[in-house]
Amino acid sequence: MKISKDVKIGATSSIFGGHPDRYVTGGYKDAKPLEYRLEMFTKVQDLKGVDLGGGYDVNINNAAEVKVLFKKFGLTPAAITADIYGDRMFFLGSVCSPDGEVRKVAWERVKDAIDSAVVIDCKLVNLWFGQDGYDYPFQVDYLDSFKRLVEFLKSAADYNPEIDIAIEYKALEPRKRLFMSTAAVALTIIKEADRPNLGIILDNGHAWNAGENISEMVAFLKLFGDRLKYIHINDNYKLWDDDMAVGSIHLVETLEFLFWLERTGYDGFYTLDIDASREDALSFTRENVAMLKKLRGVLERLNESELESIFKRNDSVESLRIIRETLIK
Amino acid sequence: MKISKDVKIGATSSIFGGHPDRYVTGGYKDAKPLEYRLEMFTKVQDLKGVDLGGGYDVNINNAAEVKVLFKKFGLTPAAITADIYGDRMFFLGSVCSPDGEVRKVAWERVKDAIDSAVVIDCKLVNLWFGQDGYDYPFQVDYLDSFKRLVEFLKSAADYNPEIDIAIEYKALEPRKRLFMSTAAVALTIIKEADRPNLGIILDNGHAWNAGENISEMVAFLKLFGDRLKYIHINDNYKLWDDDMAVGSIHLVETLEFLFWLERTGYDGFYTLDIDASREDALSFTRENVAMLKKLRGVLERLNESELESIFKRNDSVESLRIIRETLIK
Amino acid sequence: MKISKDVKIGATSSIFGGHPDRYVTGGYKDAKPLEYRLEMFTKVQDLKGVDLGGGYDVNINNAAEVKVLFKKFGLTPAAITADIYGDRMFFLGSVCSPDGEVRKVAWERVKDAIDSAVVIDCKLVNLWFGQDGYDYPFQVDYLDSFKRLVEFLKSAADYNPEIDIAIEYKALEPRKRLFMSTAAVALTIIKEADRPNLGIILDNGHAWNAGENISEMVAFLKLFGDRLKYIHINDNYKLWDDDMAVGSIHLVETLEFLFWLERTGYDGFYTLDIDASREDALSFTRENVAMLKKLRGVLERLNESELESIFKRNDSVESLRIIRETLIK
Amino acid sequence: MKISKDVKIGATSSIFGGHPDRYVTGGYKDAKPLEYRLEMFTKVQDLKGVDLGGGYDVNINNAAEVKVLFKKFGLTPAAITADIYGDRMFFLGSVCSPDGEVRKVAWERVKDAIDSAVVIDCKLVNLWFGQDGYDYPFQVDYLDSFKRLVEFLKSAADYNPEIDIAIEYKALEPRKRLFMSTAAVALTIIKEADRPNLGIILDNGHAWNAGENISEMVAFLKLFGDRLKYIHINDNYKLWDDDMAVGSIHLVETLEFLFWLERTGYDGFYTLDIDASREDALSFTRENVAMLKKLRGVLERLNESELESIFKRNDSVESLRIIRETLIK
Repeated sequence: MKISKDVKIGATSSIFGGHPDRYVTGGYKDAKPLEYRLEMFTKVQDLKGVDLGGGYDVNINNAAEVKVLFKKFGLTPAAITADIYGDRMFFLGSVCSPDGEVRKVAWERVKDAIDSAVVIDCKLVNLWFGQDGYDYPFQVDYLDSFKRLVEFLKSAADYNPEIDIAIEYKALEPRKRLFMSTAAVALTIIKEADRPNLGIILDNGHAWNAGENISEMVAFLKLFGDRLKYIHINDNYKLWDDDMAVGSIHLVETLEFLFWLERTGYDGFYTLDIDASREDALSFTRENVAMLKKLRGVLERLNESELESIFKRNDSVESLRIIRETLIK
Repeated sequence: MKISKDVKIGATSSIFGGHPDRYVTGGYKDAKPLEYRLEMFTKVQDLKGVDLGGGYDVNINNAAEVKVLFKKFGLTPAAITADIYGDRMFFLGSVCSPDGEVRKVAWERVKDAIDSAVVIDCKLVNLWFGQDGYDYPFQVDYLDSFKRLVEFLKSAADYNPEIDIAIEYKALEPRKRLFMSTAAVALTIIKEADRPNLGIILDNGHAWNAGENISEMVAFLKLFGDRLKYIHINDNYKLWDDDMAVGSIHLVETLEFLFWLERTGYDGFYTLDIDASREDALSFTRENVAMLKKLRGVLERLNESELESIFKRNDSVESLRIIRETLIK
Repeated sequence: MKISKDVKIGATSSIFGGHPDRYVTGGYKDAKPLEYRLEMFTKVQDLKGVDLGGGYDVNINNAAEVKVLFKKFGLTPAAITADIYGDRMFFLGSVCSPDGEVRKVAWERVKDAIDSAVVIDCKLVNLWFGQDGYDYPFQVDYLDSFKRLVEFLKSAADYNPEIDIAIEYKALEPRKRLFMSTAAVALTIIKEADRPNLGIILDNGHAWNAGENISEMVAFLKLFGDRLKYIHINDNYKLWDDDMAVGSIHLVETLEFLFWLERTGYDGFYTLDIDASREDALSFTRENVAMLKKLRGVLERLNESELESIFKRNDSVESLRIIRETLIK
Repeated sequence: MKISKDVKIGATSSIFGGHPDRYVTGGYKDAKPLEYRLEMFTKVQDLKGVDLGGGYDVNINNAAEVKVLFKKFGLTPAAITADIYGDRMFFLGSVCSPDGEVRKVAWERVKDAIDSAVVIDCKLVNLWFGQDGYDYPFQVDYLDSFKRLVEFLKSAADYNPEIDIAIEYKALEPRKRLFMSTAAVALTIIKEADRPNLGIILDNGHAWNAGENISEMVAFLKLFGDRLKYIHINDNYKLWDDDMAVGSIHLVETLEFLFWLERTGYDGFYTLDIDASREDALSFTRENVAMLKKLRGVLERLNESELESIFKRNDSVESLRIIRETLIK
């Protein structure tokens, strides 16, 4: 098939960071300043987009300096994720916290991320509601929480209509269950909020944890409002957000994902959200970029009209044959 | 809390049937005619609603006779499920089949179910798209399938606006993956079809297989359009549609489900969709009704304003205490 | 790596059968006599091994005729699975049924399978305890069941020490839970029974449903007694025994499985246990054989000493690189 | 049934600690010194056993002081978990690390835990191999790793035959997959090591994550060598090691677990391994102890001979009735 030639590849800034978990809380590696991490991006061919942590990486106080760093290294900001999850105060939620003071802090942090985005010419703010959920039955009033999310999204979208506000949905972790759990739940909520600059971020790992088929969800989000703004790409064993190397486990489904992204005209960044706790981050990132490009090379060899003919017949034997012949050496 | 006194309890007609599976294709028991099965309903106190199989149980040719049977036994038809899944011809789908002739048969079957519903005074037709899905990557064009579902639902809703058309979503089985997979996917699709008589059926077992929290989805469907028309109730190990006895595994979540159904004003049938392959169907059904009523009795003892206070604080320790004290002897 | 040149490929006889499920109980296709199904094997290049159903395909009464058919078609019997699961009477188990009469039937069926194996020169009888398990908490005494399994296996092994008796473990279905659930549980039980002709059958789909890593279990069974006698190969989404095409979803893990089978000297049949409900069985089987052979071709190009060096360092980046370069075109 | 009157209840010392995760690495609460945490134990009625972290809580240098603290507070050490997982150096494993220096440190830490246990009169050292596993296909030689585990366990058991060395198996986390994954895998390995002071720790949450039925595994470990030395108790949604409140989700299965622990004569500690990130640790712990005791009260009301009669018939309807009547108010 014909694929777009100027694919934009990105990665989260944290890939060159310390990678703590609940057992090795100091990180499997040393934490590193942003400048160091950005410089590492320049050592990976074709890696131009940086997905930044709001607050920690960039905030309204250091945004001008960050902009200079991006210019210096020839990089592009792909997204800023507002920090509404990484502080102890958010233990019962950000936007949905029962504590009004906490909700205010969440709002300030989202505004800071939007304002910072303007400064550094970033077009997209990522809202990941990682603490907004619940752990136990009978713990929350689901109605109240959904209402708060709708209202908050209206405010966030209206605060600066020039900036896209996109929700990175995830079904679970760190809360046992999160409200913004699936593509269709998030879509329902942003349709209720009804603002043109609201969209969805599909992290294929999150989608798998939520039981989704990633390609189907790309099509779904295209058809029902064209709201897919951005993707994170990685792999996992489908049980948890493992943030593993692209295509390392679910190679065929990853290829189909890339196919449907091209087919539906996705033109945003392909951002690696991968965990390098136990790997050399630089060679690991290079390997992921190499895999992504190789799979896009496979896409180019796929005969789209032949596939369309298969789709018309739902002919799985033929699709198995084509994948075998095109993908495997 | 105050609960509605006239809870309507139902069951699928197949509970008194043969229960085949892929290994014991002749059934673990003998198949039985509808009259026998309806008579069994009368032997279970408070079991008044019958969930009928379209075609096999009731069709336009025998509907008048079925109506007589319902009168004779003092039962109420809770739903008719159109048979768009139980024939070999639907091996690649009903509405989404690549074969136009098959799609026509599906349409005839849905019309037959709607027409039969009118005859027997049933208000709801259940559409379960059990064969509409896919098995392999690169097998289908998801966009085409979603479009067909939207168009089909418009036609089905318009065919008789007096009858509710409700989708029983399920994520998988018998196809490896089904399009009408979750509450929010089904909701998105019926909102696109945009007809007032379209709704959703939540089978708590299906919802668990799809990774959902059932109480959260009851609230979700209430808030975003009030589209919950009907429920199936059972239990499973969350991996598969086991159709096990109510509350047998997930007792606390089942209690919360009943709580939210009451809290959101659900007034439809509580229909048992349980499998009696290895149990005496009559005593098994009685046991399920007894459990359902006992759990509703627990609901009555729950202090709703105390719970609301807990919700306001997301106070899990208090919710654990209340459940322990109210539920456990 | 150097791989054995005379790989033996087989399939279950049911691949050319009717494929019923609980919704389409008459089968997605017509059932076919054994002779027809065996003839179909001859149309698939390199498919020589047949995995037979005890009772239905072969029993002591027709075994001589079956032997003639195998000769006529130039096929080899790979295994006979004793039918201790496909009859209604086994609804609460075979060996572990609470009904002594049923246990006797199970024993007769196992003896029949062993005797039939002798007649047709089959070296292996497959015991799949698909009904031996439970559905609900507090339903069975686990101790009694495990004891019965141990005693039964002693008897089965002693009945004819020339025939290998191998357990095809599976964690669930058709019972909600099965006793012979994992490689290590089955191994523990056969070690307790302590007979040299007892072994294990690893169906990679079953292993995945049980949460196992298939390659790890091949190594585990090699190291702790060298008890892997036979394999079934297919794919699934890991949630259920989907019996899908080899490598269709978990391509990399399938490749690693083939690697470890070679590395540990497995020299039995590679038997396809795949479901052709919705596919043309002949072209589907050919496609599976083609994939299996192609993946074994990839194995040949893998540099085993390079991999061993990687294993010594647990160097995942290098293993990702090698797989990318060797597997993907 | 008759239950033992002197149930021993314990908790991990970390329940009164800081509870970090990968997002809130500083902890949802402040870390606290051991003395503070032990004092908190005294505020929970009937909570006498303390499960200590090796190294951090107790080591050979401070063991004498720790002993004094236990005496002061009237507490009993239930177990010491050797710290072979919480340091960055263990990123590729402890006992199975490819780095011989790391393996040496692991050995020193295990010896330190054993020696410390002697000082504080603790009878059991917990070995949790949380870093010994792998993340990617083709990353490790499974054979080598299993061999190393066997050899290591021999050494650990021989180092001090007076101290029980028990393996807390877990299928995953922090590595994507762990070698000591299930009860039966761990049992196979300790049988190979063949030392009388080797045993198994069953954490019911870990067991659920591994797809096990916890009651079945209690019976399994009883029958095949009587190797269950110790338990951790909590709850989760079965997908992950959520460390939730006892009985909060899987109430009936928890009750059956307690039943089988009593029935098989388990007389060790019932140690809470629960996460209080978002709860007041003291009231949360009290609530868990209250639930545990209440469920043991239900046990006392269960008619064991009636249950045995049910087991003999596998009569699920009767077991459902008994649980409904005995458990639910």
